[in-house]
Amino acid sequence: MSMSLPADLWPEVRPEAARRLMSAAVESFAAVGFHATTTRDIATAAGMSPAALYVHFPSKVALLYEISRGGHEQTLAMVQDVIGQAGSPVDRMRALVGRFVEWHAKRHVVARVVQYELRSLPEEEYAVVAALRRRIEQAVQGLIAEGVRDGSFTVPDEKLAARAVLSLGIDVARWYSERARKTPKALGREYATLVLRMLGSSAH
Amino acid sequence: MSMSLPADLWPEVRPEAARRLMSAAVESFAAVGFHATTTRDIATAAGMSPAALYVHFPSKVALLYEISRGGHEQTLAMVQDVIGQAGSPVDRMRALVGRFVEWHAKRHVVARVVQYELRSLPEEEYAVVAALRRRIEQAVQGLIAEGVRDGSFTVPDEKLAARAVLSLGIDVARWYSERARKTPKALGREYATLVLRMLGSSAH
Repeated sequence: MSMSLPADLWPEVRPEAARRLMSAAVESFAAVGFHATTTRDIATAAGMSPAALYVHFPSKVALLYEISRGGHEQTLAMVQDVIGQAGSPVDRMRALVGRFVEWHAKRHVVARVVQYELRSLPEEEYAVVAALRRRIEQAVQGLIAEGVRDGSFTVPDEKLAARAVLSLGIDVARWYSERARKTPKALGREYATLVLRMLGSSAH
Repeated sequence: MSMSLPADLWPEVRPEAARRLMSAAVESFAAVGFHATTTRDIATAAGMSPAALYVHFPSKVALLYEISRGGHEQTLAMVQDVIGQAGSPVDRMRALVGRFVEWHAKRHVVARVVQYELRSLPEEEYAVVAALRRRIEQAVQGLIAEGVRDGSFTVPDEKLAARAVLSLGIDVARWYSERARKTPKALGREYATLVLRMLGSSAH
């Protein structure tokens, strides 16, 4: 399984050694899971000693938290950015699904860790990430509600529809690989059409 | 996290001790992942000695394989059953999504293991399960193609549409919990409506 991680995953994390540790942690969590990974595995993969790891992260949990919180914050910022643009609810939903799906395809290795290792976080850290998830869901639900109000969308249950929209994108991380027939961008475009139909829009 | 497993998960597995080991394995794989689980953990949770485990399963991999293959075989049988019924493509798709989503909600703990621990299988065992997955996808794609031919559905890409239909159902296992607002059955019904829209059907 190819585990190539995009170089620009955590542009804001400094110094470079911390980014290297996060990449090594993602690869190991994705390969064998959080519980079967040791801090020694991560340090070794990053070409560092366990002691050097602790300079940057106090624990394995701290690494998972940083990866998980970072991924959710990036997603929330992207969702808010798209929703805040000018344009009809249809145009913004199309852009939102396009970018969300593209992110989950392109960054499927890190996305798998972000989405599927959440339950390994301790309660307090989990609560922070869960709050970010709720804000993402609420933002998508808000855009659907806007479209319902102006007649672009018709849905029986706005909350459920928001969840379905996000589900389609998140599940891309499970099945997408570099061997997929479609590029992340093309996939995002086609999923946007499917989502607009699902929301009862006639503009697709 | 509640880990209550439905009692009728593996009605065909005999003797009862083997079923008990499979349930214990599912709970542990779901909680800490395949790699962090030992055969001792599984045996202890099932109230047995490690030696007694080996009477039924030669290894931890054999348990995961049995769980994974069993889950996929059940799903394939269900999909083939629904598709083989009389009725229009729309009716059969509605029934299919209803049952698929209901299964993933009701059995979300085992479904998570079936869906997300696949990569831990050795190559040969993985190939068997991957072949079952392809048959499931092809069956759904076949039903979509039938609907396209008789004018019930319009989709730009039948293969992609089949994947999206299955994605919506599979991702239910990730987020569903006993605290969810909707029953598995109600969720299945509402997702069926969303899927019919996605497939360009006017009958919803």
